[in-house]
Amino acid sequence: MAVQNVAIIGMGLLGTSLGMALRGGNCHRLCWTRRAEIRSWCLEHDAADETADDIETILAKADLTVFALPIPQIIAFMEKYAHAWRKGAVVTDMGSIKGRIMDAAERSLIPAGVQFVGSHPMAGTEKSGCENAFPTLYSNADVFICPGSNATPEAVEDVKAFWRSINTKPVMIPADAHDSLVAHTSHVLHVVASGLAMAILNSDDEKEKALRFAGCATGFRDTSRIASSNPAMWREIIEYNTPAVLGALKNFEDALAEYRKMIAEGRYDDFEQAFADGKVLRDSWLKYKGY
Amino acid sequence: MAVQNVAIIGMGLLGTSLGMALRGGNCHRLCWTRRAEIRSWCLEHDAADETADDIETILAKADLTVFALPIPQIIAFMEKYAHAWRKGAVVTDMGSIKGRIMDAAERSLIPAGVQFVGSHPMAGTEKSGCENAFPTLYSNADVFICPGSNATPEAVEDVKAFWRSINTKPVMIPADAHDSLVAHTSHVLHVVASGLAMAILNSDDEKEKALRFAGCATGFRDTSRIASSNPAMWREIIEYNTPAVLGALKNFEDALAEYRKMIAEGRYDDFEQAFADGKVLRDSWLKYKGY
Repeated sequence: MAVQNVAIIGMGLLGTSLGMALRGGNCHRLCWTRRAEIRSWCLEHDAADETADDIETILAKADLTVFALPIPQIIAFMEKYAHAWRKGAVVTDMGSIKGRIMDAAERSLIPAGVQFVGSHPMAGTEKSGCENAFPTLYSNADVFICPGSNATPEAVEDVKAFWRSINTKPVMIPADAHDSLVAHTSHVLHVVASGLAMAILNSDDEKEKALRFAGCATGFRDTSRIASSNPAMWREIIEYNTPAVLGALKNFEDALAEYRKMIAEGRYDDFEQAFADGKVLRDSWLKYKGY
Repeated sequence: MAVQNVAIIGMGLLGTSLGMALRGGNCHRLCWTRRAEIRSWCLEHDAADETADDIETILAKADLTVFALPIPQIIAFMEKYAHAWRKGAVVTDMGSIKGRIMDAAERSLIPAGVQFVGSHPMAGTEKSGCENAFPTLYSNADVFICPGSNATPEAVEDVKAFWRSINTKPVMIPADAHDSLVAHTSHVLHVVASGLAMAILNSDDEKEKALRFAGCATGFRDTSRIASSNPAMWREIIEYNTPAVLGALKNFEDALAEYRKMIAEGRYDDFEQAFADGKVLRDSWLKYKGY
């Protein structure tokens, strides 16, 4: 792998776990995050080899920079610091949406001669912060890769090799296809999980609420798990991917309406068949993932 | 506890786990299930103390009988074997719905002088069969209790004490309130999970299907877990609880429509607040359950 100096910008759950995953590899890990005490924590916990007070010092040294920041900050930082990288340096990110990030890179990094290759690893938990990071967060994850308009084949290969070095599987995809895909496979699930928590647990009647609390068990626990995710983060993702999320929501609402129709019309054989088909699909997905 | 001979009828996941949970208690565990090799398995694996080829032999000895059968069989067995119990014996069940089971008990057991107290423990997994049974399946579960019209206070106390003896929490509730409750807290979740599996993973386009498989990660795994449940079992539960399930589905669809409206109208602050409210509700529920 050609990359030597890897800069991680933002040391929350994702950035810190990335630093930990790179332990023992052949790169020098630079890190920067706003709070000095977190930069120190990352050095102490072997999530980085070097840090600096000043982000521009880090960016100037980086062969590959990975943004592990919220989407608006990725966009703002690319605009603010486009001058800080040496020409030909490669920048990637871990943002959950790609379209608006690629647009920002086109406006800021590419005119400055900095190459951009978008990344999105399919990994995370409902927790946040460096203290919840762990080195196997990315193990076996698929990572979507969207090259910017100026990315050389070598830059794309470097980014793919980088992800492979921490045991993930790069998958090439255009930005718009990516954003529709994750709206279906992730974003809409958060809306559904939150909708379930609200529809099931929320009641003005204290006695009913107590019964609902008692009635929910492991099925509810798992189906609603991601409703305990960070509200600000999910607001942001959905704000930056609204058209695709609305499309995915429509597809799910249509599927649910089909199930409702089968039940309301007493077509229980059809319901059982649909449920069995869903089970086959999910079980084959589990096998694909190796869960 | 007054009950000495406990008969478990049906040795699948629930019946066998119940037998295992009763190990070392002060009752004598009788069991019956259709297949002789499973009856033998249960004796060999200490899930029961005694069995017989003939169900009526078991029922005649039982102080307390627990039906761990599918709903239609609970109803059929109560009608077929109402004569088999001694008068005053207590019968309960573990069926996921209560209304139609209580109706059947009114028609068959109660005229025969057999007392009925409906039970529904909030426990289960997506697996089935005695080979997947384990003794802590019921630990800390809430158990809903619906007394039949002829149940004496002593019979209700016996059933509550029975459930407490395996570390569960009895909660008294009328049958119709129960059926609406579980439609909300459990049944609708299975429809939603299956709808998600179908909406997300099902595609005629092989390339899109492969991308969807790659795009789904732990959020999908957990949100859709119960879509891998037994289709025949869930068809049955929904068939026997159709009006309540349709009501719960409507409530969820309304909650989801609210979220869609907030997103479509760009009211992201409202979305974030709703998501935060859902998180607070779910997190307080997790604490209540001790998960």
